[in-house]
Amino acid sequence: MNYPSRLIEEAVNEIAKLPGIGRKSALRLVLHLLKEEEGATVNLASALVKLRTQTKYCKQCHNISDEDLCQICKSPRRDTSIICVVEDTRDVLAIENTAQYNGLYHVLGGVISPVEGIGPSELKISSLLDRVAAGGVKEVIMALSTTMEGDTTSFYIAKKLKEYELRVSTIARGVPVGGELEYADEVTLARSILGRTSAEQF
Amino acid sequence: MNYPSRLIEEAVNEIAKLPGIGRKSALRLVLHLLKEEEGATVNLASALVKLRTQTKYCKQCHNISDEDLCQICKSPRRDTSIICVVEDTRDVLAIENTAQYNGLYHVLGGVISPVEGIGPSELKISSLLDRVAAGGVKEVIMALSTTMEGDTTSFYIAKKLKEYELRVSTIARGVPVGGELEYADEVTLARSILGRTSAEQF
Repeated sequence: MNYPSRLIEEAVNEIAKLPGIGRKSALRLVLHLLKEEEGATVNLASALVKLRTQTKYCKQCHNISDEDLCQICKSPRRDTSIICVVEDTRDVLAIENTAQYNGLYHVLGGVISPVEGIGPSELKISSLLDRVAAGGVKEVIMALSTTMEGDTTSFYIAKKLKEYELRVSTIARGVPVGGELEYADEVTLARSILGRTSAEQF
Repeated sequence: MNYPSRLIEEAVNEIAKLPGIGRKSALRLVLHLLKEEEGATVNLASALVKLRTQTKYCKQCHNISDEDLCQICKSPRRDTSIICVVEDTRDVLAIENTAQYNGLYHVLGGVISPVEGIGPSELKISSLLDRVAAGGVKEVIMALSTTMEGDTTSFYIAKKLKEYELRVSTIARGVPVGGELEYADEVTLARSILGRTSAEQF
């Protein structure tokens, strides 16, 4: 495409680098910003730069945080004997939104993926082991994606945790609530049968 | 949603103001930027600010331009006797991409819309009349959306142009190329019958 201005072309190029935004959508956003007040663009740009340059990570659970220790790790109402291991901040938000979990988290920052060159040392696994070794942890819940990479990572961590006296659990895999059986894939359905629970639990 | 950091919340708020991006997508973009190099975010932010603060508009056709006069108005290979009237820069890009048009443009900056409080004086209509009055223009092509607002605007401009000796045309409305008749809506099909062309034109 022939852009009428170098500035537009540069902005489209930068926006189109974001995941899920193509060049057409990028151009639409650019023209939107040009129509809006100058302040809107300046605020957006400064929020992005601040985000990237000032965000800290909790030194205990590696979740994104404004301070050295995140709100969850700092809270006196949290059960410090349970740690839920997740891939990234999005998973923390998703679990927090259920309001069903009251323990702490540990954000790995990814999963083991030889294809992408991510080994155990690239993830926050050793600091998880340090937390467990410090004592007081009774259960570690693995809440990683059910992909080959996620399962590999869960397996790797579970093996490392064997030498400590604690329960290692994994979140239940099964048919989604509200989902119809006939639309569930075979692997999920098989897992939901293997992992069946006694009916009294309802 | 409970964001773990004020910086994330602010960035999500700003991104979610963009059209077509909700809070979930905004959070996804935020987490993406946090994973990428710092330079990526800084470049994006500076491209946006530059775009908004440094973009100029062509003083003749009001298209976005890096200089006082845009590439199209400046080009010696363009037919200056035809002006195509469009709503915004996106339309110029769309027509330019067809490589079928060799005249100049005139970007109105919108269409007359009483509901949104946009009257003729908010649009670049008087400068179009000035261009026509300056002479040398043989045809004005109206290429606005086929909405009530677009048609109103076309009608308004065509009326204003009546006092000048020139042809006022409108782009053909009809069944899209490659489109099947049975899927065309009735209004489009009716227009395509009324606006039928002699078969030799193919």
